[in-house]
Amino acid sequence: MPYPPFIMLDGKSGLPLYRQIYEAIRRAILSGKLRPTAPLPATRLLSKHLGVSRMTIVNAYDQLFAEGYLEAKTGAGTFVAAHLPEEFLQTSGSGRREHQESTLTRKVKFSDYGKNLAEHSDSILRHHGKSSLVPFEHGVPGTEEFPFDVWAKIAQRWQKKPPTQILSYGDAVGFQPLREAIAAHLASARGVLCEVEQIIITNGTQQALDLIGRIFLSKTTDVYIEDPGYYGARDIFGATGARLIPVPIDGEGFNLQTARKRSRKARLAYVTPSHQYPLGVTMSLTRRLKLLEWARDRDAYVVEDDYNSEYRYGGRPLASLQGLDRDGRVIYLGTFSKTIFPALRLGYLVVPTNLIGVFAAARALNDLHSPSLDQAVLAEFITERHYARHVRRMRGIYEERQQILVGEVRKNLKGMLEVAPAEAGMHLIGWLPRGIDDRDVSLRAAAANLKIAAVSAYCIEQKLRGGLLLGYTAFNERLIKQGVKKLARVLDETM
Amino acid sequence: MPYPPFIMLDGKSGLPLYRQIYEAIRRAILSGKLRPTAPLPATRLLSKHLGVSRMTIVNAYDQLFAEGYLEAKTGAGTFVAAHLPEEFLQTSGSGRREHQESTLTRKVKFSDYGKNLAEHSDSILRHHGKSSLVPFEHGVPGTEEFPFDVWAKIAQRWQKKPPTQILSYGDAVGFQPLREAIAAHLASARGVLCEVEQIIITNGTQQALDLIGRIFLSKTTDVYIEDPGYYGARDIFGATGARLIPVPIDGEGFNLQTARKRSRKARLAYVTPSHQYPLGVTMSLTRRLKLLEWARDRDAYVVEDDYNSEYRYGGRPLASLQGLDRDGRVIYLGTFSKTIFPALRLGYLVVPTNLIGVFAAARALNDLHSPSLDQAVLAEFITERHYARHVRRMRGIYEERQQILVGEVRKNLKGMLEVAPAEAGMHLIGWLPRGIDDRDVSLRAAAANLKIAAVSAYCIEQKLRGGLLLGYTAFNERLIKQGVKKLARVLDETM
Repeated sequence: MPYPPFIMLDGKSGLPLYRQIYEAIRRAILSGKLRPTAPLPATRLLSKHLGVSRMTIVNAYDQLFAEGYLEAKTGAGTFVAAHLPEEFLQTSGSGRREHQESTLTRKVKFSDYGKNLAEHSDSILRHHGKSSLVPFEHGVPGTEEFPFDVWAKIAQRWQKKPPTQILSYGDAVGFQPLREAIAAHLASARGVLCEVEQIIITNGTQQALDLIGRIFLSKTTDVYIEDPGYYGARDIFGATGARLIPVPIDGEGFNLQTARKRSRKARLAYVTPSHQYPLGVTMSLTRRLKLLEWARDRDAYVVEDDYNSEYRYGGRPLASLQGLDRDGRVIYLGTFSKTIFPALRLGYLVVPTNLIGVFAAARALNDLHSPSLDQAVLAEFITERHYARHVRRMRGIYEERQQILVGEVRKNLKGMLEVAPAEAGMHLIGWLPRGIDDRDVSLRAAAANLKIAAVSAYCIEQKLRGGLLLGYTAFNERLIKQGVKKLARVLDETM
Repeated sequence: MPYPPFIMLDGKSGLPLYRQIYEAIRRAILSGKLRPTAPLPATRLLSKHLGVSRMTIVNAYDQLFAEGYLEAKTGAGTFVAAHLPEEFLQTSGSGRREHQESTLTRKVKFSDYGKNLAEHSDSILRHHGKSSLVPFEHGVPGTEEFPFDVWAKIAQRWQKKPPTQILSYGDAVGFQPLREAIAAHLASARGVLCEVEQIIITNGTQQALDLIGRIFLSKTTDVYIEDPGYYGARDIFGATGARLIPVPIDGEGFNLQTARKRSRKARLAYVTPSHQYPLGVTMSLTRRLKLLEWARDRDAYVVEDDYNSEYRYGGRPLASLQGLDRDGRVIYLGTFSKTIFPALRLGYLVVPTNLIGVFAAARALNDLHSPSLDQAVLAEFITERHYARHVRRMRGIYEERQQILVGEVRKNLKGMLEVAPAEAGMHLIGWLPRGIDDRDVSLRAAAANLKIAAVSAYCIEQKLRGGLLLGYTAFNERLIKQGVKKLARVLDETM
């Protein structure tokens, strides 16, 4: 009888002994050290050899029998199964690592979507990656001011004694009290006109755009997007294979006339009318009405991304495009990433009545629904008025931060960066002197541990003067001042 | 000067007075009651008429100016803007509701995916809808036994003073400590061999399957699925337009030979080798090795859905198919819906090294990442050993519940339903006498407030004897006994 030299028992390993023996034999079989039909030592012998109880060996062998690695021949003992396909046993087990490395260059048969993603995975992950939270990253709220005490108290109630029903599979469209809270909030704050049924909870704007892309776009469709514009929409819609039709943004926002010259085929337009991303322009009423008219005439849909309408410091919030629509042509989307915190991953869609079914089904197939306890906590946070209070408070804080930033830039970056206060939003645009490449500045800033996006990175065809997106919402006075000083050095070197 | 009869102020409304006036005028313009170029009363006049301060009227007008509804002509007063497109002003505002109703029959230009979903939204929402939690719904854990005290305590720490970094946008692949906890758990409990980098956190199995479908499948591809099998996979893969190749399940599980006869083109196979869904068969080692061999030869991938491997009552858990794979051909998926609670919406993928990039990008584009605090709480719950303890405890409870169910069925449903104890899983199959239609029984059971799925509802081409899926994990002894009594009445009436 052979004695298996490959079994090393480790008393400190978390694994039970029988399991260690099982693993060792299994590995030996798979790596070819133990060949098919090879005999195994009797349990009594092996138990003596390894200094463990016979039951331990029996348990290990039993498991190997159950999985088909071993066979017993009456009277003759235990053998490696004869019918293991040869090919699996030839290469050595230690080859696994190298094997996997060689697969990195392997050509995989993807779908068109998969191929597209595989080719662009680096840029996608760069665009949709982790926050760095260094100045002047934009679009990130100042979470240190969030009332976590209140939030945690509400959460605690839901987590300690949750009702049974909420713990199981829920509605694809979302937790009903949250939908109601959002409908009420949108009606009063944004002039959105909708029934609760039209609200579909999403894991943020990203998922909302993804659902829209899947439902409407394919290789044969055209879609209007803003230029410059949000690369989330660009990446998501582009990945469907649809043709992206960039529409230049001017002082009144999205220009439909230009759009129609570029494509007569499009039936979807993605716009940020309240506060254009990234330029901050507000779409004029005339343009809004024209856009709705186009949608009606063309049997098209307008996607209204109202991503940070809550932060308006001057003037008054403009009512939503959705509120003007009387023909069910607007798909409205909002997010809590900018008002609560991004890691919550909750947002919503308001869809025309005839599209509720298809959106609900798309959401159900995608990932069933958003986590129910998170939805319940948020619903209570809104209905108990903490949400409105928090947004109001942050509006004051952000306004102040913006003023500090404007002041610091004007004081320290004179002649190098031109800023004007913005009436809304979470970032300012600092315009560079003509001839200075904003991408170059952005790269140099990154080397100085600043995160500053270049306006031109958002442009598709439109040529704009070089500019920098300066987010201020996530940074206190000290960090803003430090950031501007660093930026001054960067700009000094560049010019 | 006209006087606007349409303004009704409501002192008890939550809206400020200026806003009520703004809304009233805006509505009047949009509904055509106030025509383009129509004059508006002077602010002083209107303030007197309505009995409000002049500033209130000025504020309302300002907003309407800002949005382009009004125009001022120097010296002549205030007018409705002349350039509002005619078409928008003709139909009355109250027509909105009817308008939306008429849109329900509207033909919409969807993508192929959208069209498919729109046609099947009812059945998709039925398959992926809310739990009802009546006996004998299957696949739902007994959440009343979950240690919410422990969970809430961990959650409280994370929610009260969360580190700033975790609140912002996170990694698409998931929260690192959770990935590490899962990798460690999988290695010891499931024999899964992987590096932490290969783990991608998902919002449950549903999203994992959706990502796989998008990355690999399209109209021109074939995919093997089990028959009978999980309709989640069927619906998701089917929605991509791919051709589903049903492969009959026999006593050894998925039969590759039959599969290859049906399609030589497939490069993706979806299987549940540890515990076939819904029949409960374990895939034999020979079949497993053959399947891996096929994948290697065909440049294909095997999706291993290990959905409830934690619940094994007899024998020992079989190692995963992934652990046998030495060529990077298995995409492994697991979920916490069956062990923690479904509403948490967390699961994971283990992907071959060469596919990490494309899966991460697909996840990032889909919805960025899963909620970070939920991930942090779960990670701690696992690493502090609460997870293993809970699963062990539930295994005991479920085993007992299964025994109660078997006992009750044998006692009360003799000759009407045949059950055998199952070594694993969360449901039993009760086989009906030949000639009895299981769908009919399922419908009658629903009328009696029982939720019992029919085996044939999971079959595609395979014809099996009628059977019922009896979930027992979410029901205590009393509910199981009541349920069996109800079922006895239903079966009595049927036979």
